[in-house]
Amino acid sequence: MKLATLGEFDLINQLTGIVQKNCQPSAASWRHLILGIGDDAAAWQNESGPTLATTDCLIENTHFTLETTNWYDLGWKALAVNLSDIAAMGGSPRYALVTLGLPKETPSFDITQLYSGMTELAGRYETAIVGGNVSTAPVVFISITVTGLAGQHLLTRNAARSGEVVAVTGSLGGAAGGLRLLQSPLGELDKDGQVLREAFLKPQPRLEMGALLVAEGVHCAIDISDGLVTDLDHICQQSGVGIVIEASRIPQPPALNHLFDQESLSLALSGGEDYELLFTAPAKTIELIATKAPCPITIIGKVTDENPGKIRLLGPDSQELPINNKGWQHFVS
Amino acid sequence: MKLATLGEFDLINQLTGIVQKNCQPSAASWRHLILGIGDDAAAWQNESGPTLATTDCLIENTHFTLETTNWYDLGWKALAVNLSDIAAMGGSPRYALVTLGLPKETPSFDITQLYSGMTELAGRYETAIVGGNVSTAPVVFISITVTGLAGQHLLTRNAARSGEVVAVTGSLGGAAGGLRLLQSPLGELDKDGQVLREAFLKPQPRLEMGALLVAEGVHCAIDISDGLVTDLDHICQQSGVGIVIEASRIPQPPALNHLFDQESLSLALSGGEDYELLFTAPAKTIELIATKAPCPITIIGKVTDENPGKIRLLGPDSQELPINNKGWQHFVS
Repeated sequence: MKLATLGEFDLINQLTGIVQKNCQPSAASWRHLILGIGDDAAAWQNESGPTLATTDCLIENTHFTLETTNWYDLGWKALAVNLSDIAAMGGSPRYALVTLGLPKETPSFDITQLYSGMTELAGRYETAIVGGNVSTAPVVFISITVTGLAGQHLLTRNAARSGEVVAVTGSLGGAAGGLRLLQSPLGELDKDGQVLREAFLKPQPRLEMGALLVAEGVHCAIDISDGLVTDLDHICQQSGVGIVIEASRIPQPPALNHLFDQESLSLALSGGEDYELLFTAPAKTIELIATKAPCPITIIGKVTDENPGKIRLLGPDSQELPINNKGWQHFVS
Repeated sequence: MKLATLGEFDLINQLTGIVQKNCQPSAASWRHLILGIGDDAAAWQNESGPTLATTDCLIENTHFTLETTNWYDLGWKALAVNLSDIAAMGGSPRYALVTLGLPKETPSFDITQLYSGMTELAGRYETAIVGGNVSTAPVVFISITVTGLAGQHLLTRNAARSGEVVAVTGSLGGAAGGLRLLQSPLGELDKDGQVLREAFLKPQPRLEMGALLVAEGVHCAIDISDGLVTDLDHICQQSGVGIVIEASRIPQPPALNHLFDQESLSLALSGGEDYELLFTAPAKTIELIATKAPCPITIIGKVTDENPGKIRLLGPDSQELPINNKGWQHFVS
């Protein structure tokens, strides 16, 4: 079967099966492993506490084009998507290794710009770039691995419990709106357009929020990279719960409503790449978090023990709305 | 300036400069860093000892073609080149994260074969595959990051001292010979051809040797990935020493001599991808190591304080031979 038919998530399931079949329970590596394939980052036990490690990759013409992205922003984003995974585990980043695939004709100045964007963000979160690799490639790609330290406990995808509510940081759909504007330029962008473009090109990893969630006793979180519905689905599947979302509660940036009107809900549901945190906790905990958070926190639904593994989306009169597009999945999208 | 003019090593120097300019000496990450960009792996201090991390990438049509490499061998090699870096630091591997770029039309069976080759090698060295990432890409690439634990001390490129001798494990040039045979097939390969093909497709990371070097008090080592001359050059530059090599001492596999005759010395000098260890130590230490090593050890030259940064290659009558091709360098090769 071709990957275009199988899809990203079933491929990952198959590969996870091969790895698990060949694992060695008595080896030190496997004995100290806390979380393997399947969450925002892997985690293993060290004497000083759990170490986190995550990897993510941006590929030309899959994740970006050089017509619509400058090199500085590309460096920023390539690191940001990794730091976001560390945030979603409630940890702090420490070290980054950077692999670049580059065509021979690339001007070296562009790569110094890429590194300037990357080191700017690395500096904000005290992350040291300590190694990497450069190779000739037919298109540009940037693959980064980040290690980090966990907080008092890990935020995982499998910890949602019935009775909790579901919340998100910031607003959703902005990045997808920005991508649309970059793909179909209609002349100079106005102020709203610039806000959405910035949301797509320069995501802000929610590291302070991840740490706050840990401090307030939250246990379940994920970052929204594939789209709200797909990332809710990861929580439903791994926690064995159902989730009910109220469409009217999903926070969207005003610029998205101005420019995309009726379509903004669909972009917020399935657009992806917002790199906000999605988490579950008792309602009282979330109320408290909202008073301390450095960004808006919005309750968008609840966790149920009905329909485990299923997401229901409710409209204004509590009628169930169809979910037409779950979000991004490699090979089939 | 285009990368094709600048070359891999000057690009890395420029990027290292940007990272160093923006480093934060007071941040925990930088304070605990032992080795950043510029050796076979990065190293930082943990409570239980130094952690190692390295990353390496194989790209279709740069490092391999699908016509000449099967998926199982590709998975093996993609991990092996990373484990070789851990060996060159004298450490033991622990965890691997795997990023795959794949065309949509790739059969999923091929990727399960890739993972079978990778998990086979991972199992031999008790390395747990704990995460990764899959994305749509125009060509196949496999980027792997491996973390590990250091031994009692690190093997580095900057520790060669005048008066030491230079030695290598195994033999050199076999992988380059194998690649030539794969690139210009002349029908079925004979036994010699199969040996060389195997050297190119299935390198054996010298992890036991790396540990033995640490145990015997060696301090300077590198793995031979870019070619003997280029990797000697890394030691010369970083240790600030000169190195004199005797051409007649460079060990070559008999199959290489049979099939490439006069050309085998040049393949052994510049071919690369043998993933043998190159190291320096007092002659007596190396004699002792040779009695304990799981593979042949050959002294090929000596470290001098004359001509720091320079490699001299001597022929049979001690006349100096020209070095025509230093080895592989991305973008210019």
